[in-house]
Amino acid sequence: MHTLPKGYRLATARAGFRKEQRDDLALLVSDAPAALAGVFTTNVFKAAPVLVSMETVRARRNARAVVVNSGRANACTGDEGIARCRATLEMVAKVTGLQSHEILPMSTGVIGEQLRLELWENAVPILAQNLGTANLEAFAGAIMTTDAFPKFAATELQLSGGTVRLCGAAKGAGMICPNMATMLAVLFCDAAVDTERWRDIFRRAADETFNRVSVDGDTSTNDTLIGLANGASKVTIREDEFPLLEDAVRDLLGKIAYMLVQDGEGATKVMHIRVRGAASPEDAERAARAVGHSQLVKTAMFGRDPNWGRIAAAAGRSGAAFKAENAHIWLCGVQLFKNGQPTGVDVDAALAGEMDQRDIHIEIELGAGAAEYLFLASDLGHDYITCNASYRS
Amino acid sequence: MHTLPKGYRLATARAGFRKEQRDDLALLVSDAPAALAGVFTTNVFKAAPVLVSMETVRARRNARAVVVNSGRANACTGDEGIARCRATLEMVAKVTGLQSHEILPMSTGVIGEQLRLELWENAVPILAQNLGTANLEAFAGAIMTTDAFPKFAATELQLSGGTVRLCGAAKGAGMICPNMATMLAVLFCDAAVDTERWRDIFRRAADETFNRVSVDGDTSTNDTLIGLANGASKVTIREDEFPLLEDAVRDLLGKIAYMLVQDGEGATKVMHIRVRGAASPEDAERAARAVGHSQLVKTAMFGRDPNWGRIAAAAGRSGAAFKAENAHIWLCGVQLFKNGQPTGVDVDAALAGEMDQRDIHIEIELGAGAAEYLFLASDLGHDYITCNASYRS
Repeated sequence: MHTLPKGYRLATARAGFRKEQRDDLALLVSDAPAALAGVFTTNVFKAAPVLVSMETVRARRNARAVVVNSGRANACTGDEGIARCRATLEMVAKVTGLQSHEILPMSTGVIGEQLRLELWENAVPILAQNLGTANLEAFAGAIMTTDAFPKFAATELQLSGGTVRLCGAAKGAGMICPNMATMLAVLFCDAAVDTERWRDIFRRAADETFNRVSVDGDTSTNDTLIGLANGASKVTIREDEFPLLEDAVRDLLGKIAYMLVQDGEGATKVMHIRVRGAASPEDAERAARAVGHSQLVKTAMFGRDPNWGRIAAAAGRSGAAFKAENAHIWLCGVQLFKNGQPTGVDVDAALAGEMDQRDIHIEIELGAGAAEYLFLASDLGHDYITCNASYRS
Repeated sequence: MHTLPKGYRLATARAGFRKEQRDDLALLVSDAPAALAGVFTTNVFKAAPVLVSMETVRARRNARAVVVNSGRANACTGDEGIARCRATLEMVAKVTGLQSHEILPMSTGVIGEQLRLELWENAVPILAQNLGTANLEAFAGAIMTTDAFPKFAATELQLSGGTVRLCGAAKGAGMICPNMATMLAVLFCDAAVDTERWRDIFRRAADETFNRVSVDGDTSTNDTLIGLANGASKVTIREDEFPLLEDAVRDLLGKIAYMLVQDGEGATKVMHIRVRGAASPEDAERAARAVGHSQLVKTAMFGRDPNWGRIAAAAGRSGAAFKAENAHIWLCGVQLFKNGQPTGVDVDAALAGEMDQRDIHIEIELGAGAAEYLFLASDLGHDYITCNASYRS
């Protein structure tokens, strides 16, 4: 098992929020105030825990704890949802000795139903008793919903002043599994870094990782990514070493973001969609997202069908400005479309074995400029339908 | 069977473009030059027949014929695709005595493969011999690909000067079945109307019908909608009767557009998504399309699950400007969300029977203005995956 960053303790408990008999409530506590960064959903219908956490991130530089429940998302629950969210923070504050404004809430599960406070009343004291007993895998397991496996990663960074440790855990589904509101992640480390710099590092790293993956394009009401840096390593970071910290944060978030796509409901593939030669970064993103969200591309990948015409059609309708005669497409490294003309390669012969792999590389050159974008997306298979046609019932 | 508008003859033939033994080539000829209107895909990768037809619509006011093949879309086929498209028009011109620029081509089928001209050489003379023998249903049947049923409709308009007849036929899939490039439709009538006015009427009617349906959001490379009005009814239309003609065109296109959604691959539902109270028409459209394209909303409908939280989440991420506290949602006429708060209705009890119906009405009030938009979309079920994971093979 990974060594946790210094100065953090984890706990899980079985509150009964879910039908399955398994842990469904998790708590992370930092012994010292940690520099706090947060990235939240852009959905208009922000869940109650998102609104409460956003207020904390705006008003305060530090935090001490994160509490996460599965089962109910506490989204679209109105004023009562906010009140119940705050009530859960009071319960946690009481048993941990923290102030409620030092604790960040996260919730995931069904939208539109209220938290069941009587279950919280019973579970929170047990959660406090368990503090320090859970490892990272148990923490990641307690926040799962339809996840097939717990998502966590850890790394160590050797700096001139000593070792800094970083850990991260996430549940579900970037926009992967978005019926249940949805993507929750926390990265915590024992680096000593002031809040402004930590937020800069964290925001850039999140934009290059979590904001570039998709399972089904349905951005949830609950997406939350929290970053904590508590300084417990006592390692002084030299000015020229901060880029190393940023690289470590980005790599760790990138690993976890990949796991979200890999575990997309019913997914069997991870598409790596790289658009080059776009007129602007926005156009590159537009074309990459159109391909990654295309139901036709996704079902072709599920069927191991090297159907490059669907990739062209999706890029062509994306709204990105380019000319057909300047466009090129490669699938698994083989060029199939060149200057708007088919290359004449025998597609099935060239790609038969390649399409069986988990990771499928798609490259699109638009010939309209120099901007690029890389986007990761899952395929679309029967288990997605099965999972999502019956989630509530 | 419907009576065809005066002055039109139809034909079908079995050219062998498809594996199944059935007609796969269709021809419509007007005895007189018909006022010509056309609406085409906005995809950058426009198919060869789209590029050729667009050129004709730009350069000419009238047309005499439409020829349609299934099996191959002739899209992403480069210069050779254009040359082969023109070669097929020459063949049809030769046997019908028309000029090739009087004939509009349409193609549907696999993207990226060239037309097989040797099959055309054999079939076109048979097609000409058959002219006048096919009815509207046979014509609609010959242009099908994965369609479950032929799509056609007809209507008669009683005007002061006599009877005007309108017929329409379509294949596949607005953006329904978009792996095979895709939506083709023709509306033909014997009204006497000049080209400018006909194009105005047709464009408005298309925008309010065909441009407001979706199966999977994948706008194809071949979408084409052609309108012909040949004047053979000899009915003089009074100035104040043109709105009646426009209503008839819109109703007919609306019926056919509904059939496209109804026949969406694997579809069991037609969602009628009405967004009201938007700050702008663009915002209303944005919110309606986000709901209609949401994989989570679509799979919930397939599962007969009144999961209104997914509707809220999709509208909330659409980019439409509104405040959560001013939003309302109705499903099948029952209000479930009011001013950003759940109404407390027992959703399952209230909607149990309603969710079994084919037509599901979704209403969203954004409380941000006065703009509206109505969008029709299908659900997403297992047969869509099955169909599209193996289409090429």
